[in-house]
Amino acid sequence: MGRLFMDDERSSPVTDHHDETTQLQWLEEDRLHEECGVFGIFNHPDAAALTALGLHALQHRGQEAAGIVSFDGEHFHTERRMGLVGDHFTSRPVIDRLKGDMAVGHVRYSTTGDAVMRNVQPLFVDLESGGFTLCHNGNLTNALTLRENLISKGAICQSTTDTEVILHLVARSEKRNFVERFVEALLQVEGAYAFVGMTNKKLIGARDPYGIRPLVLGRLGDAWVLASESCALDIIGAEFVREVENGEVIIATKDGLESHRFVPKNPARLCIFEYIYFARPDSIIDGRSVYDVRKAMGRQLALEAPADVDMVVPIPDSGVPAAIGYAQESGLPFEYGIIRNHYVGRTFIEPEQQIRQLGVKLKHSANELQVRGKRIVLIDDSVVRGTTSLKIVQMMREAGAKEVHMRISSPPITHPDFYGIDTPNQDKLLAANRTLEEMREFMGADSLAFISVDGIYRAMGFDGRDDDNPQFTDHCFTGEYPTRLRDREGPPQQKQLSFLAEVG
Amino acid sequence: MGRLFMDDERSSPVTDHHDETTQLQWLEEDRLHEECGVFGIFNHPDAAALTALGLHALQHRGQEAAGIVSFDGEHFHTERRMGLVGDHFTSRPVIDRLKGDMAVGHVRYSTTGDAVMRNVQPLFVDLESGGFTLCHNGNLTNALTLRENLISKGAICQSTTDTEVILHLVARSEKRNFVERFVEALLQVEGAYAFVGMTNKKLIGARDPYGIRPLVLGRLGDAWVLASESCALDIIGAEFVREVENGEVIIATKDGLESHRFVPKNPARLCIFEYIYFARPDSIIDGRSVYDVRKAMGRQLALEAPADVDMVVPIPDSGVPAAIGYAQESGLPFEYGIIRNHYVGRTFIEPEQQIRQLGVKLKHSANELQVRGKRIVLIDDSVVRGTTSLKIVQMMREAGAKEVHMRISSPPITHPDFYGIDTPNQDKLLAANRTLEEMREFMGADSLAFISVDGIYRAMGFDGRDDDNPQFTDHCFTGEYPTRLRDREGPPQQKQLSFLAEVG
Amino acid sequence: MGRLFMDDERSSPVTDHHDETTQLQWLEEDRLHEECGVFGIFNHPDAAALTALGLHALQHRGQEAAGIVSFDGEHFHTERRMGLVGDHFTSRPVIDRLKGDMAVGHVRYSTTGDAVMRNVQPLFVDLESGGFTLCHNGNLTNALTLRENLISKGAICQSTTDTEVILHLVARSEKRNFVERFVEALLQVEGAYAFVGMTNKKLIGARDPYGIRPLVLGRLGDAWVLASESCALDIIGAEFVREVENGEVIIATKDGLESHRFVPKNPARLCIFEYIYFARPDSIIDGRSVYDVRKAMGRQLALEAPADVDMVVPIPDSGVPAAIGYAQESGLPFEYGIIRNHYVGRTFIEPEQQIRQLGVKLKHSANELQVRGKRIVLIDDSVVRGTTSLKIVQMMREAGAKEVHMRISSPPITHPDFYGIDTPNQDKLLAANRTLEEMREFMGADSLAFISVDGIYRAMGFDGRDDDNPQFTDHCFTGEYPTRLRDREGPPQQKQLSFLAEVG
Amino acid sequence: MGRLFMDDERSSPVTDHHDETTQLQWLEEDRLHEECGVFGIFNHPDAAALTALGLHALQHRGQEAAGIVSFDGEHFHTERRMGLVGDHFTSRPVIDRLKGDMAVGHVRYSTTGDAVMRNVQPLFVDLESGGFTLCHNGNLTNALTLRENLISKGAICQSTTDTEVILHLVARSEKRNFVERFVEALLQVEGAYAFVGMTNKKLIGARDPYGIRPLVLGRLGDAWVLASESCALDIIGAEFVREVENGEVIIATKDGLESHRFVPKNPARLCIFEYIYFARPDSIIDGRSVYDVRKAMGRQLALEAPADVDMVVPIPDSGVPAAIGYAQESGLPFEYGIIRNHYVGRTFIEPEQQIRQLGVKLKHSANELQVRGKRIVLIDDSVVRGTTSLKIVQMMREAGAKEVHMRISSPPITHPDFYGIDTPNQDKLLAANRTLEEMREFMGADSLAFISVDGIYRAMGFDGRDDDNPQFTDHCFTGEYPTRLRDREGPPQQKQLSFLAEVG
Repeated sequence: MGRLFMDDERSSPVTDHHDETTQLQWLEEDRLHEECGVFGIFNHPDAAALTALGLHALQHRGQEAAGIVSFDGEHFHTERRMGLVGDHFTSRPVIDRLKGDMAVGHVRYSTTGDAVMRNVQPLFVDLESGGFTLCHNGNLTNALTLRENLISKGAICQSTTDTEVILHLVARSEKRNFVERFVEALLQVEGAYAFVGMTNKKLIGARDPYGIRPLVLGRLGDAWVLASESCALDIIGAEFVREVENGEVIIATKDGLESHRFVPKNPARLCIFEYIYFARPDSIIDGRSVYDVRKAMGRQLALEAPADVDMVVPIPDSGVPAAIGYAQESGLPFEYGIIRNHYVGRTFIEPEQQIRQLGVKLKHSANELQVRGKRIVLIDDSVVRGTTSLKIVQMMREAGAKEVHMRISSPPITHPDFYGIDTPNQDKLLAANRTLEEMREFMGADSLAFISVDGIYRAMGFDGRDDDNPQFTDHCFTGEYPTRLRDREGPPQQKQLSFLAEVG
Repeated sequence: MGRLFMDDERSSPVTDHHDETTQLQWLEEDRLHEECGVFGIFNHPDAAALTALGLHALQHRGQEAAGIVSFDGEHFHTERRMGLVGDHFTSRPVIDRLKGDMAVGHVRYSTTGDAVMRNVQPLFVDLESGGFTLCHNGNLTNALTLRENLISKGAICQSTTDTEVILHLVARSEKRNFVERFVEALLQVEGAYAFVGMTNKKLIGARDPYGIRPLVLGRLGDAWVLASESCALDIIGAEFVREVENGEVIIATKDGLESHRFVPKNPARLCIFEYIYFARPDSIIDGRSVYDVRKAMGRQLALEAPADVDMVVPIPDSGVPAAIGYAQESGLPFEYGIIRNHYVGRTFIEPEQQIRQLGVKLKHSANELQVRGKRIVLIDDSVVRGTTSLKIVQMMREAGAKEVHMRISSPPITHPDFYGIDTPNQDKLLAANRTLEEMREFMGADSLAFISVDGIYRAMGFDGRDDDNPQFTDHCFTGEYPTRLRDREGPPQQKQLSFLAEVG
Repeated sequence: MGRLFMDDERSSPVTDHHDETTQLQWLEEDRLHEECGVFGIFNHPDAAALTALGLHALQHRGQEAAGIVSFDGEHFHTERRMGLVGDHFTSRPVIDRLKGDMAVGHVRYSTTGDAVMRNVQPLFVDLESGGFTLCHNGNLTNALTLRENLISKGAICQSTTDTEVILHLVARSEKRNFVERFVEALLQVEGAYAFVGMTNKKLIGARDPYGIRPLVLGRLGDAWVLASESCALDIIGAEFVREVENGEVIIATKDGLESHRFVPKNPARLCIFEYIYFARPDSIIDGRSVYDVRKAMGRQLALEAPADVDMVVPIPDSGVPAAIGYAQESGLPFEYGIIRNHYVGRTFIEPEQQIRQLGVKLKHSANELQVRGKRIVLIDDSVVRGTTSLKIVQMMREAGAKEVHMRISSPPITHPDFYGIDTPNQDKLLAANRTLEEMREFMGADSLAFISVDGIYRAMGFDGRDDDNPQFTDHCFTGEYPTRLRDREGPPQQKQLSFLAEVG
Repeated sequence: MGRLFMDDERSSPVTDHHDETTQLQWLEEDRLHEECGVFGIFNHPDAAALTALGLHALQHRGQEAAGIVSFDGEHFHTERRMGLVGDHFTSRPVIDRLKGDMAVGHVRYSTTGDAVMRNVQPLFVDLESGGFTLCHNGNLTNALTLRENLISKGAICQSTTDTEVILHLVARSEKRNFVERFVEALLQVEGAYAFVGMTNKKLIGARDPYGIRPLVLGRLGDAWVLASESCALDIIGAEFVREVENGEVIIATKDGLESHRFVPKNPARLCIFEYIYFARPDSIIDGRSVYDVRKAMGRQLALEAPADVDMVVPIPDSGVPAAIGYAQESGLPFEYGIIRNHYVGRTFIEPEQQIRQLGVKLKHSANELQVRGKRIVLIDDSVVRGTTSLKIVQMMREAGAKEVHMRISSPPITHPDFYGIDTPNQDKLLAANRTLEEMREFMGADSLAFISVDGIYRAMGFDGRDDDNPQFTDHCFTGEYPTRLRDREGPPQQKQLSFLAEVG
């Protein structure tokens, strides 16, 4: 699920009260954020309890809010909360209220603005034919255009999510059959989506024509399960059946499973960042272990960019698998030269007599005796703004490292994402504006290297990137966006959102 | 603002979790509840602070929730909260966020079900022409019919309030001018309403064709003020200008005040319960002091139904003004034979070894030495289910009263209201199903009398009720509803509401 | 229970964070505050539920906090909360945790400072002989002196209440028998107290040698009950047995009731303010109905200070009974010329363009049509600082009253209290520093009169005050304090309190 | 800081409401818990802000609660909260209230019972000489005995912590000088302690005669700093000066630093678990890097107990450093075969149709493609009850591991701790009651080995354990307790605690 508005509109007319940039904010801002995880289950007496577990396994895809809608044969029930799944969906009364043997659920990523309940999914609408509830992972690239058009026709929009646009399109469709109405809506939207939805009879899954965001199908006894990643099947003991295909709508009813294709079958192009960063290491996507892929990227990186050093040091936690691969390939020792503080998360009051590096110290600390006097290579999985890299190189030097080399197990990020990953504007991306040498200088490292674009495809088992039919969506590295970006083609829009139902 | 659904649907499909009937519930249920108070101000630098004060003065009209929307020339700002005005709108940050020199606000009455944020007003919608926010006191009697029709045309409704229907009608109007769109919507709705609304240029007030719910216009320096009652003008020091007329739309802009009539001018028919029960005693409606009217009803009651007793005892607090009138007219002493506990409000754990009358004792206590051995007449302003009367008569007898007579300063309530007063179904109304003698017996009083319908008009300064053109809406006593009740004409509807934005 | 520290120490070293003086603060400050209500019950299976009800009936004696301790034959259980009884002690789990057939409870009055949990009673201590819990209404006048002495001997004090001193004295007593230890402690303290306490075998009540604060004994089946006022017996259906005597310790055990006198029997001297202001109107103290006494004071006031006016107007709610008496005696009509807003309680944001009288308007409003053009006499029960009187006289004049006369049904308060009533320093008491004419001028009234000291005794059924052996403690009017005020004899003490157990 | 009561009293008379054993509880119970971290700073304008940072760095030592007391030259200020440092001490108003240039702080570990504010440190007491505040890491083994004695002399104890005993001993000392009073108290207590305390003139540190718990001294400009571990010096940029010695009291005043020995100088015996488990890996204790020591233990383990497997898999996170050492020494690949879910923390509703291994799956998941068909050796740092080992071995087998060997980098835990580590009763310790083979069978591992006692000393750089003068306190492995355990010598005590100040 994406926000409806473009980056230019961050200073939007909605009353958002942002705090000042803080010690930790740059740490957060210097990461990529996936926006969502989705889950659904059909025909299981413990539908809501299993959905809670599935969402817990998908928690890494979104920590801001979570929601579940169930259907008990007669009524829909909904529970939606700000915060972690484990904070709210572990209570017996909450699960008991979510009656029924069908349920869908959603986790949403953590951001400071726009964190209002009306945007928490699943969204629900009362159609003439009955209730319909929808969960979305991804981002629609023509939602704003569609929304303007809907409003000019008298539609009242309440949420700020692109997902609501789908609901209006389904509500306004003149088809009679629900699946036809849903497909008619899909044919109007552009962008990335993995949808999990539910009516009073059906569990519905759908992936966009490129399959940019992941969605898997599983089976637990007589129940069908849909989830963003296989790790959500594992936690409930469901067996993996197959991936939902790109351009496929899959429907589970009491008569079994139906599959509808709404666009001709083409090779999928999953977002490569799922492997690099987002998916949980124990998930298996398209037959590949995410952990193995990350290690293979580290190995490939070691081949492409060796370093003459004493040890390999991961930037925890995301750099660990690639660092293990790098160490194994290079034969260098793997050492925790940086310790992560697991209790971080807040901004402390800055003492007036300034402490150097306070921000980074709240989250990481140098394992000083380990790195003192050593030549080290730091391994990270990606560089966004580069500010974290800068601080960590400094921290290593202050701890006494003799040389600090930096190796990155993904190519330089030169373009923003518009498919559900929260990236900064292009002018904030370190690699968009600097040569490799300028980046090295910015970070203060003794050397810097990124894996090559072909190298990352090699780590996935290909000979390299197939430039004619790229195997993945890799626009952040190449600028090749797989879809039109219609909302960005006109001038920036500035509209006050409805707050018909805003909490305050 | 009214609920959209009919009494038959109290056992509705929405997941409402009601507690068991409790000691105090019958006390609450045995009263009438007004559903709302509205307020708006145009062109004052302290718009939000003054709106908070105005809503505080209107707090008796609704204690469940309160909300304010302001407009600062560029953006709308909204704050809506469950609870009292004084609990939330007294904080400097809240008021400071409500920037601008225009604001509208709303208080909503307290009920246990349906108490969700999405229903808290003001409602806001983003029209093609810009924002529009609306507050409603009253109830539309064809809202359900209109809503069904809107949904069949693809509208997505989120709140359970009839007020939202207006927003959809305005959004879908094909008129170009805002006032024309708003009037077009008004011409489609039936029932009772006092609206206060706001666009980015206008403050808007409107009363239904009968003027069932009150709305006054005031002036504070260069600012225009709209409010449900004059007491809200008093608290901010505004001067009373006039009542908004029945069938009138009033618009304040920077060019001054406009008045539009959307139906031909007819005599108004205010709901007589405003005088009997709802309005604050210090409010002045149509030139009459509410306190004076209530005293006059007590005087008239003394004339119609004298009692040969030692003292007049009001049932606090609502029976006090009529009791003073009764005592003055009859020459009997006025005494507080019943003491009200100001800290009541919750249901205590019932000791297993039963205490008689626990419920009533939590709220009232007998002033025993005062009533012991005395003949008393109890004065109350109305009887709904009769359960409170029953308990209080018992309490007086247990305290040693020799005779207990009951006098009611309004006529018997035989019909439910559909214009914004929360009345029980007709079969729960004591007077709908019993003769006077049966009611007396039910209460256990030595005698019982109600003021006559003509008597209540006499207390208002008329010779009696003008049956051809009744001066007030008095359907609860007479069964003469001023409008069609379209939603009640078909079979009961059972629709799951959208919870697109429900909090949970 | 009193605070340990003297007025001079209001600006004490403890970290208290007071807000600025606000609109409503003067309303609150211009009243007298009783500090507590106590309750205890022995040998009833519903001990905690009944204690909750008893405390609810005593809520007018203290709204800041409430607490209950029960004993189940083996263990003591405690629940203490900030806020009203009805807010916390109405929950089944809370009452269920308070197991046992003995319980004691306490309500404490509302103030802004010092509102920390460590001060919430009942206090509990683990003596060598077992647990002992104590509730206190009153104030010890040598507690500070005793506390200094205890600390010098190595005692660690945690609360800021004088009550804790008793616990230390009992803990350090070298007597073996509990009652002897308790009496030894009582013989060391000076001041006012009504204690209700409990060990694992006994329910204990005690009143100071003068009986300054009230305490009654009741019976409910086989259970013994102790309570500050008879209204707490009424709510649970207990029958009144007798007052606990001044200088008496009363002990309920399974062997029955014991009475111990620790000082020779002398006439009691109840604090006369219990009748004037504190007790609930339906309570009966020493055989007198509080409501009747207040009306009699109004009657006496009418005899002493008649007014040539059109109507009698009470200042709600406390002036109502005296106003009824005044009206009855004088034959003048009794009218609600001032309406009280029941939802007040918070300070609203002051609009920058000042509204006159905002504070008083939040709580009271003029019943304008009633008073316009009339000569009125306002009746109040007491004057402390005089600021409320001033504002209300102004409000009546703004509403158009032709003449505004003020009559007070208690004598001028010229001296502060040190026995559990929260009075301002003497220099803040209006009557301590001004002649009657100066007070009238301060208030802006056309005339002003107080009841005489002898008059108030007459209203109680005496010929007048017996100056040799005054029938009541009336030091606030006469300056005759019944006990030594030892803590005030030395220089002001400034000690940091322990916050061993402070919440934060 | 320790609890006062012995294990036998877990079913104690205090009203504790424990939940049933849950899915995650065994995970928590199967770990060792350190009870506290302490911090103090003298003579720095940002004393409170720096204390908050220091406590954040020590958060791993206790997550239940945190508190800070500051002194501003005139008054003490206190803030104590349940929860993490980052949740409460990051707010500007909280830090601003903690005025002054001296401060001490404390973090306390997370447990389910006894979590009441009165036990949250720093404790504060008002002595005759002025305020004294104290923070404690460790546990006194004769506190109960001392407490009984104090109560018999009339002391009133409120907290359930052993720390309070020290305060009473200081309060009752008849010495005149504060240091003498404090030392007199220290000479009466037995057990383990690292104290950080503060009077209005002094910052005080003290370690018990064996130096069981760590305490370091640092310097930041002109300020002196005391902290449990060096990582708390690092975060504020302070430089390490030296360890506080065993049996030393260190006092910082404006005149500089004083050192007092209260027992003759002997070799220290730090608790060896600080190296094995508690301390943060980047801390340096006695010149040794904790991370290096852990790796060395892994290396030594590889020497003592090699495994013929395909890879080394750490049990995250605590087994990671030893696994790295084991892999390096053995030349086997180091792989993350188990993925930790960082968002765990709550107990989910168990679906009725049971899911195997739900508990462990909430926290860990198998990296299935990595371990399938492989022979693996799992490395953990310790075994307490063995339940986690059991579940993880099962999880590895279900994931398809061909062989699962278990290696533990500390010796078998056969005896409980009484010095501030929360261990289960001896009968719950796996190694106390089983042979190695029985333990292997319990876990279901193909083989099991622990490092030897001498081996662990070798990893620390010694030739082995010096049985005459052991270099560390290692009673959990050897049963040799360095001090008397006086409270355990008599029969179990059952006393109701005071809840003078309990919150409820």
